[in-house]
Amino acid sequence: MQIVRHIATATKASNRRIEGTMINQRMFELGDEPSAIRELFAYGLARKAEIGADNVFDFSLGNPSVPAPPSIKEAILDILEQPAEQVHGYTPAQGAIGVRKAIAESLNRRFGTAYAAENLYMTVGAAASISISINALANPEDEFIVVAPYFPEYKVWIENAGCVCIEVPARVTDFQLNIEAIEDAITPRTKGIIINSPNNPTGAVYPECDLVELSNALRRKQDEYGHAIYLISDEPYREIAYGETKVPFVPELFENTLVCYSYSKSLSLPGERIGYVLVPPTMEDSKRVYAAVCGAGRALGFVCAPVLFQSVIERCVDEPCNIDAYRKNRDLLYNGLTKLGYECVAPQGAFYLWMRALEPDAQAFSEEAKKHELLIVPSNSFGVEGWVRIGYCVDYSVIERSLPAFANLMKHYQVSGF
Amino acid sequence: MQIVRHIATATKASNRRIEGTMINQRMFELGDEPSAIRELFAYGLARKAEIGADNVFDFSLGNPSVPAPPSIKEAILDILEQPAEQVHGYTPAQGAIGVRKAIAESLNRRFGTAYAAENLYMTVGAAASISISINALANPEDEFIVVAPYFPEYKVWIENAGCVCIEVPARVTDFQLNIEAIEDAITPRTKGIIINSPNNPTGAVYPECDLVELSNALRRKQDEYGHAIYLISDEPYREIAYGETKVPFVPELFENTLVCYSYSKSLSLPGERIGYVLVPPTMEDSKRVYAAVCGAGRALGFVCAPVLFQSVIERCVDEPCNIDAYRKNRDLLYNGLTKLGYECVAPQGAFYLWMRALEPDAQAFSEEAKKHELLIVPSNSFGVEGWVRIGYCVDYSVIERSLPAFANLMKHYQVSGF
Repeated sequence: MQIVRHIATATKASNRRIEGTMINQRMFELGDEPSAIRELFAYGLARKAEIGADNVFDFSLGNPSVPAPPSIKEAILDILEQPAEQVHGYTPAQGAIGVRKAIAESLNRRFGTAYAAENLYMTVGAAASISISINALANPEDEFIVVAPYFPEYKVWIENAGCVCIEVPARVTDFQLNIEAIEDAITPRTKGIIINSPNNPTGAVYPECDLVELSNALRRKQDEYGHAIYLISDEPYREIAYGETKVPFVPELFENTLVCYSYSKSLSLPGERIGYVLVPPTMEDSKRVYAAVCGAGRALGFVCAPVLFQSVIERCVDEPCNIDAYRKNRDLLYNGLTKLGYECVAPQGAFYLWMRALEPDAQAFSEEAKKHELLIVPSNSFGVEGWVRIGYCVDYSVIERSLPAFANLMKHYQVSGF
Repeated sequence: MQIVRHIATATKASNRRIEGTMINQRMFELGDEPSAIRELFAYGLARKAEIGADNVFDFSLGNPSVPAPPSIKEAILDILEQPAEQVHGYTPAQGAIGVRKAIAESLNRRFGTAYAAENLYMTVGAAASISISINALANPEDEFIVVAPYFPEYKVWIENAGCVCIEVPARVTDFQLNIEAIEDAITPRTKGIIINSPNNPTGAVYPECDLVELSNALRRKQDEYGHAIYLISDEPYREIAYGETKVPFVPELFENTLVCYSYSKSLSLPGERIGYVLVPPTMEDSKRVYAAVCGAGRALGFVCAPVLFQSVIERCVDEPCNIDAYRKNRDLLYNGLTKLGYECVAPQGAFYLWMRALEPDAQAFSEEAKKHELLIVPSNSFGVEGWVRIGYCVDYSVIERSLPAFANLMKHYQVSGF
């Protein structure tokens, strides 16, 4: 168990000036550095062109394979019946009152809460929600805890706010929260912790009992240090959970929770960039935190969330997420891979399967998989060693056809004796 | 002539910690501070409810009164014929190749340039374009020059990047660039200058001769200090210029120009948040600057520009801006006000009229105007004293009916002897 403290090598406060260039070196590096996921996806496109799309098994992305429900198109057509200047005009920075009211009421119906429009701030998707939340809360050199493996942009946003990213490993091998380790990692400078359940990349869903225990740990530390510690709950996969798995509603368990939501996955609208931050009224100093969220949105250059999709969400707020296809994919993939002898975390939610690599070096394993036309993301991208992420938001037939390739990959390692 | 150096009172690098609160104080203040424009607009809504919409003359906002052209709706309907998973999916962070190619080719046709898709980075509107550009270029304590009066968010974005906002006044009374003053304000720490032509709030359009002179001044300073000085050209009003007025294409005059564009005004899509940053290939170190733009977009929490409107722009890239209504409004308002004895800057572009207040305190003048049901924005909001902005992106009839109120306002000051 090792807690990793990432001190940003080139935060705004301590940026290196590079001889001969005047631009921001950290931004250049962020823009220039290859993303393993994007590179794998680009490789897949090229490879498909080369040997045919059916012969490449691309599990690299988290782009929903289920199309947006028909009600989305119906809502757009309905909205477009209104005068164009009403359809496409500015909304207040925090979003139109109508969509915020609709979301508050939907949450109240589902979770028995008492939210109102003024607790919601509409955003350009979950990335914006999290970046804005961090900037609203953070002072330089504050610490944010993340649970490894984790979505790699968390670290980028934390460091961009001049803060320190503290990685606390999840429990191996169920990848649930290690609450004792989290409590140990909290210092007087801890501003918050980011959790993501259902989880990308592991497919784990945190049960209520663990979240209650986490809340108690956070409250102990709040009392010890005399200030709030915020729980940023990143919930784009909230609606995607299988079988009996329940996704607890985090702000009902811990009062200082900001919910960062997005409709990218639940309504298959990833490119439209629409989501929200919920600042519950039960939070300590809720109105000030909400104002800081508004301020951070303004300071980062967000004006308002795209208005057409604000109106779409207002109309489709109770549209259920169609998870049948993902469930079928999950069952086929998980059963197929475990039968072949792979060690997999049984996915409880989201649309990712987390599998142990057949050699310690996940990057090398991912490279070997490529030789079998299997595109799977090495766990290094998520801050841990030795695993891979298989995104099963793909056609069912891709999984069917990929299983012989996974069998051959296994054989390769059995023969080579790893 | 006074150059104002704004040292951010609470930048990220030197944030105050406030006793009893743990959130970011600067973000709270940014979110909590009343915007004069928004307050005036909110007052207008309440007042209209009270005395009837026809009796309040609301010139507070820059929300286009001309509806989006019919081709926008046609494009959306056409796009929605495609499978939903294609319509709403992620694009690369820099935007879909199709829309970037379409914009590059449109610019090439209009300006004889040789741009390609890889020179364009799609954004969530001009605010994002400028915030991203500043963050891409800036190192802490760098200076950016703005020309006062200026759009107040420039200062917010500059300070959020840990930089210093240097205000150089425009020439009074034509509100053109004071190039000598700008050159004097450039120091070894100057990273860039933001210009906005056609201008919000003054309606001025900078002629080519002045931009050439500015370019020469910037080049002299580049040579003197041995590094690039960037011109950030904020161009949401590029297509809105009247009569013989030409809007020069800035990157053809100065090589180190980043163009920050938005379709908010030209196609009346302000709520949809769609625009771009152009990093011309002729810029020094163009590829590195482009990578830094990508990095800044990532670090701030932008994932991609809204995909439906990327596709709309691809189809409508050559759609002309309908400026007839604004021209008629301008003529009526400018002629009416000058006839009444007001001192106005003749608007060459955009849809704002800049008028001298009838007392030195613009805020007090704006308050007095409210008594005559005239909602006009005091120049303090734009960093200067003694003027007001009248946004004439309103119905023609509002201007017609407002002129007697402006006459009464003038009478009030004549009687009270200011």
